[in-house]
Amino acid sequence: MIYSLEAGGKRIRPLLLFATLDAFGTNPENGLAAAAAVEMIHTYSLIHDDLPSMDNDDLRRGKPTNHKVFGDAIATLAGDALLTYSFEVINKIPSDVASPEVKLNVIVEMAKAAGAEGMVGGQVADMEGEEKTLTLEELEYIHIHKTGKLLRFSVLAGAMLAGANQSMLNNLSQFAHHLGLAFQIQDDILDLTGNQQLMGKPVGSDTANHKSTYPLLLSLEGAQDALQTQINLAKEYLAKTALNTELLLEITDLVASRNH
Amino acid sequence: MIYSLEAGGKRIRPLLLFATLDAFGTNPENGLAAAAAVEMIHTYSLIHDDLPSMDNDDLRRGKPTNHKVFGDAIATLAGDALLTYSFEVINKIPSDVASPEVKLNVIVEMAKAAGAEGMVGGQVADMEGEEKTLTLEELEYIHIHKTGKLLRFSVLAGAMLAGANQSMLNNLSQFAHHLGLAFQIQDDILDLTGNQQLMGKPVGSDTANHKSTYPLLLSLEGAQDALQTQINLAKEYLAKTALNTELLLEITDLVASRNH
Repeated sequence: MIYSLEAGGKRIRPLLLFATLDAFGTNPENGLAAAAAVEMIHTYSLIHDDLPSMDNDDLRRGKPTNHKVFGDAIATLAGDALLTYSFEVINKIPSDVASPEVKLNVIVEMAKAAGAEGMVGGQVADMEGEEKTLTLEELEYIHIHKTGKLLRFSVLAGAMLAGANQSMLNNLSQFAHHLGLAFQIQDDILDLTGNQQLMGKPVGSDTANHKSTYPLLLSLEGAQDALQTQINLAKEYLAKTALNTELLLEITDLVASRNH
Repeated sequence: MIYSLEAGGKRIRPLLLFATLDAFGTNPENGLAAAAAVEMIHTYSLIHDDLPSMDNDDLRRGKPTNHKVFGDAIATLAGDALLTYSFEVINKIPSDVASPEVKLNVIVEMAKAAGAEGMVGGQVADMEGEEKTLTLEELEYIHIHKTGKLLRFSVLAGAMLAGANQSMLNNLSQFAHHLGLAFQIQDDILDLTGNQQLMGKPVGSDTANHKSTYPLLLSLEGAQDALQTQINLAKEYLAKTALNTELLLEITDLVASRNH
């Protein structure tokens, strides 16, 4: 569990959660428990995705994958325990930060974002779509669920802990939806154009695995246009919140321009 | 997910939860959400335990194991999604049954019972103990965690939903602890003496796998004595609660005399 948690990564989900709290003028430290929980869920999903029965990856974040070091059984159990522990950790949100009702709402949202109608559902759709040429709609379904739902949860959790009203939650939800799609389009572009050393994992694996990607369906230029469209939409919804969104905008620009 | 949930099994965890509510004179229906959640966690653990990288079992509850039907990847994900969904389902405890504070306590207890310091920790210890002759203490550590913690949670969840005081929780916790050990001793005895058709899975696999069991460490007669000791202890703690424990006693006798 610790090996994979400490392997690093971009920590984009905690960053989004803290930046959302900051947008409300709330102390980012209020989000520590939720941020740790969401990073644990993300990390467990990487451990299981990397297993030989799934993507069979040897390298993650520049280090051997969990099962390469500890074996498939322990990797499976480390993932299981991280997922379980995330629900223990999220309960550590201090009582002066959120009422029990708000904590329960955050927990339900996390379970929905991570489960069969969220991240795991997206992973199943992704596997079922392997070796097929997908439509753009099918590709978006995969990404909205596999990556998007947990990114969206990170923003929503911050907003819920900051006491956002429904209108703000709606706009931030839309912001996170478009940011998530932008994140994934850039992921596909980087698999085609990225630098293996910066990425910490092999590039070109999508092409080798005959995976449907945005560049494959839209051409590289079309994918770059789609990326810009999603970034613009994300920023539009952010502007509607009338919050102090400086850090969220920085993260949005980072997603668009990242090289790993 | 549905394939394995509907494969049946003894439903001992929901039974314990409902019987505990009954002991308090509380409507067992109040425990439906928690009972469904704990059975989902148990079922996910069986799916993952049966994987080729773990116990590599082909038969469970008289049917082909999940990965035999759906493949290793989908079985892994079905387990992940069941575990995640259990935390969504437990939130469906109606608000007139439990306050948000009690629901949060139940959720934390479930996560602890299922996670690295509970069931998953026991599974890791079990795997590390394979092909070794364990001490009785090591064997008990494995069973207290791998099976005992979730059985204990089932009783505690019922008690918490029924508004038990700390003294009742302590006695019921001890009851469940000894019942859990009795359950596991009988499991080991049945692997030696049971009928494959009644069990729905092969017998003799512990011996074939050189697993440490109670009969191996204590002889069959010694294991039967140990079973009776644990049953007696369970009943002593149950008597201390001064509750109407008729159904819990029936389950205790069932555990001692079950043939599958």
